[in-house]
Amino acid sequence: MPSHRLDVLAIGNAIVDVIADADDAFLAAEGLTKGSMRLIDAEEAERLYAHMAPAREVSGGSAGNTAAGVAAFGGRAGFIGQVAPDQLGEFYIHDLRAAGVEFTTPPADFGVPTARSMVLVTPDGHRTMNTFLGAAQHLPATALDEAQIVDAALLYLEGYLWDPETPRYAMIRAIEVARNASRKIAFTLSDTFCIARHRDGFNVLIDDGRIDILFANEAEILALAGVPHLDAALAAVAPKVATLVVTRSEHGALAMHGGERVEVAAAPIERLVDTTGAGDLFAAGFLVGEARGLGLETSLKLGAIAAAEVIQHYGARPERDLKALAGDLLA
Amino acid sequence: MPSHRLDVLAIGNAIVDVIADADDAFLAAEGLTKGSMRLIDAEEAERLYAHMAPAREVSGGSAGNTAAGVAAFGGRAGFIGQVAPDQLGEFYIHDLRAAGVEFTTPPADFGVPTARSMVLVTPDGHRTMNTFLGAAQHLPATALDEAQIVDAALLYLEGYLWDPETPRYAMIRAIEVARNASRKIAFTLSDTFCIARHRDGFNVLIDDGRIDILFANEAEILALAGVPHLDAALAAVAPKVATLVVTRSEHGALAMHGGERVEVAAAPIERLVDTTGAGDLFAAGFLVGEARGLGLETSLKLGAIAAAEVIQHYGARPERDLKALAGDLLA
Repeated sequence: MPSHRLDVLAIGNAIVDVIADADDAFLAAEGLTKGSMRLIDAEEAERLYAHMAPAREVSGGSAGNTAAGVAAFGGRAGFIGQVAPDQLGEFYIHDLRAAGVEFTTPPADFGVPTARSMVLVTPDGHRTMNTFLGAAQHLPATALDEAQIVDAALLYLEGYLWDPETPRYAMIRAIEVARNASRKIAFTLSDTFCIARHRDGFNVLIDDGRIDILFANEAEILALAGVPHLDAALAAVAPKVATLVVTRSEHGALAMHGGERVEVAAAPIERLVDTTGAGDLFAAGFLVGEARGLGLETSLKLGAIAAAEVIQHYGARPERDLKALAGDLLA
Repeated sequence: MPSHRLDVLAIGNAIVDVIADADDAFLAAEGLTKGSMRLIDAEEAERLYAHMAPAREVSGGSAGNTAAGVAAFGGRAGFIGQVAPDQLGEFYIHDLRAAGVEFTTPPADFGVPTARSMVLVTPDGHRTMNTFLGAAQHLPATALDEAQIVDAALLYLEGYLWDPETPRYAMIRAIEVARNASRKIAFTLSDTFCIARHRDGFNVLIDDGRIDILFANEAEILALAGVPHLDAALAAVAPKVATLVVTRSEHGALAMHGGERVEVAAAPIERLVDTTGAGDLFAAGFLVGEARGLGLETSLKLGAIAAAEVIQHYGARPERDLKALAGDLLA
């Protein structure tokens, strides 16, 4: 099997997270559904921000978080996403490149600032996101470097990319290039509301057999399958993808491949601070295991380690040395 | 005694902290002195940033941190400082106003962006700062609202304000207004290198009896007094200020007033993560106690609680409910 320059090339909405604490009453007053991602316009972004507590800014974006996680484990990752030539865009670029991720999409002025998501963290540690897509929604197919796609063993895409029209076509083009070069394609369902918006598009991808690895949390796989029970959802979706990975928060995670089903427990944590990035970092760990042919169980364990690390602090990027935390699993 | 609208009005350099991990080897390679604050220009800011690890942005600035801390304890605080009309400036304004601090200095375009400090946090939890003063250095005396100064029981100033020329004059004017209205004046020595740069100016303020409350850590009081032993430094400086407060990290803190000397132990912590803001938050707690006439010991204890909270996470702004942590001390 030819070796690739990159293990994972991720494409996603380039978003800086603006993270503040909020209580349940605040969510209720704002009519927000805890745990969801809501798209907002510039006016709503300003209005909501004015009502939020003091915040911290940490680069985010689902695929960006996964790319950073892959690099933190010592994997070779690339990222494609669109920022504006502003301060947030500078931070976004810095934070990925400083993590060792190959990120060369030039910032561009589409008359909108870099995307940001107002992330509200409730005392239970759950995160409720309010995303202004800004420049991210203008990621063009021309931003794709086809040689880079071919250079990566695996292409990783966010369901969230289906929301903005221009990136959707970039994603579809990327899938085509990867398929023609026999590269693996991984896809994450992202969010239940996102599935509701783009169910048909997601099902076309999946039913056409274009997805090699599908990531979902429990709520998302139920939403996709349209059934209320996990086993029924697994039975419906697993036959359509080579590998299905379902994360289940404190209940651990499972993977299904070639008739085999493996489950692991969640890695222990001291305190749940902020769930932002849990699924993204889980995917990062799993993909590193996949890239090295370590098998389903080890790949799930790497995912669990990465997810456990990221939920113990604010922000969706790893703070600790994931290679060290993985220890013998990566030996 | 007339009641005032504000307990504390703080004036300082408005700076957003860009915080990243670094190891001792990195500090050595960059020729940095651990624990210090170094002023840098735009070119060096870009060069250093390019070499730093992935970061997080949290509003900072010594006096800004103290103002936020006072508000977090339920005190009434105001802040005066200069940001640019850019994204960092927006964050800075949001983070203080959302904390309940009165901050109305309009952003202004002086052709330079909002100040930022590259804060390197080593594994021992210590912070080494590299500050590009940007718009902060253009804070004009005209930004002062003399009615607001008169409305505050206490004026709080950073030694760091002495670095840039325009704010220095704003600070001197503010002291004059406060003195004429018989308001108390508090001053923090900020940093040993800052003292080295402005020793004469600091000594004029202190020797003229203009400082009612002087804050310093142990290294700073030794530097100011030019002696190698704490007791000698206290003996030299205490007679010149109504109240002298010296913080001593894990050794606790002391205050001297009217011949009385009180010491408290450091508040216990679980883990030292980032010392940024320790002195600023200590001052906040002490000033809240002072504003409420709670006495030296309680004021020192409030300071210790605030400092202990802020050093257990990245960033110099409080994350937990300081009123709740203070419990009976504020009853």
